[in-house]
Amino acid sequence: MRRELSVSTSGTYEVVEITRQVAAVVAESELDEGLCSVYVPHATAAIVINENADPNIGDDLLAALDKTIPEGIWRHDRIDGNGAAHIKAAILGPGEVIPVDHGQLVLGTWQAIMLVDLDGPRRRRIVVTVR
Amino acid sequence: MRRELSVSTSGTYEVVEITRQVAAVVAESELDEGLCSVYVPHATAAIVINENADPNIGDDLLAALDKTIPEGIWRHDRIDGNGAAHIKAAILGPGEVIPVDHGQLVLGTWQAIMLVDLDGPRRRRIVVTVR
Amino acid sequence: MRRELSVSTSGTYEVVEITRQVAAVVAESELDEGLCSVYVPHATAAIVINENADPNIGDDLLAALDKTIPEGIWRHDRIDGNGAAHIKAAILGPGEVIPVDHGQLVLGTWQAIMLVDLDGPRRRRIVVTVR
Repeated sequence: MRRELSVSTSGTYEVVEITRQVAAVVAESELDEGLCSVYVPHATAAIVINENADPNIGDDLLAALDKTIPEGIWRHDRIDGNGAAHIKAAILGPGEVIPVDHGQLVLGTWQAIMLVDLDGPRRRRIVVTVR
Repeated sequence: MRRELSVSTSGTYEVVEITRQVAAVVAESELDEGLCSVYVPHATAAIVINENADPNIGDDLLAALDKTIPEGIWRHDRIDGNGAAHIKAAILGPGEVIPVDHGQLVLGTWQAIMLVDLDGPRRRRIVVTVR
Repeated sequence: MRRELSVSTSGTYEVVEITRQVAAVVAESELDEGLCSVYVPHATAAIVINENADPNIGDDLLAALDKTIPEGIWRHDRIDGNGAAHIKAAILGPGEVIPVDHGQLVLGTWQAIMLVDLDGPRRRRIVVTVR
């Protein structure tokens, strides 16, 4: 089964948890055992799995990426001004695949599924596929 | 269905778009809805999804990786001279999983599938699996 | 089919090869062609695929990550002291998907599947799903 989610971000950089929405697709699919792919069809956003109980972790991730890949020094910046966002998105990757067992996402206690927008604010699509 | 692609690179570092070849495997599979795995069975190459309409982005990615993980300072360099290539490949990862819907890859407007060779020139195999 | 592996690490940072255990799950599944997901349900560990014939590569990866994302300077450190481990795990990612063909993992000659513990020593679970 395939469903599309939509998230509107409000800043240039933003980490938005989407665990609940992905879990709802898994529940709707009624799949007992398999895999759940979470995929963002954008070149300046990414899907990351980590802790969100402390939302500082998302800010720490964005700060680490900004320190390593600073803005404004890339070839693509002459065309579109968002070269750093593309590089960060390429490194983080557009998707993650999570196991499903007994009809539920196999996430650890401290794992949340998060959309990372690196060039917002925008409306971002997220494709969830359960197999 | 599983098919193997082959790409010959010509430089030490090279980003080669393979979207069309992967899409041809999806079309051949006649799968309507599911997942497409693109996987490179090499330890100094990676699969990345990002924009290729401006090929500068591939160069920017390679430059950012080189700045962060410079050559010639790693333990493995005493054995094989390509330590940086291994580290970069481990971080980017050997594969991506892309949703398939209505018989087509669900790629965003600015998303292309790319092989990143970090230790060429070589002939690189790419395994495409559609499920 | 789904199986859970368990690995006990002994240091703060540790790279542990798990190729043989994952291959055993694939053999047990008797799947001829498909995909194998390897997933760690933890927020300070990751799955990486690269060379382990020279174990220096794992040490090089840990050194590169430590240089890029040093310890002790993150917001989350005020809460739990392991901010760097979370950021590194988010960048490496919790899982990899490997093709299966003729009943075997399609790994390159120099590819090994490795658990990367970034905040050990701990007992780490690894979920292997074959589809």
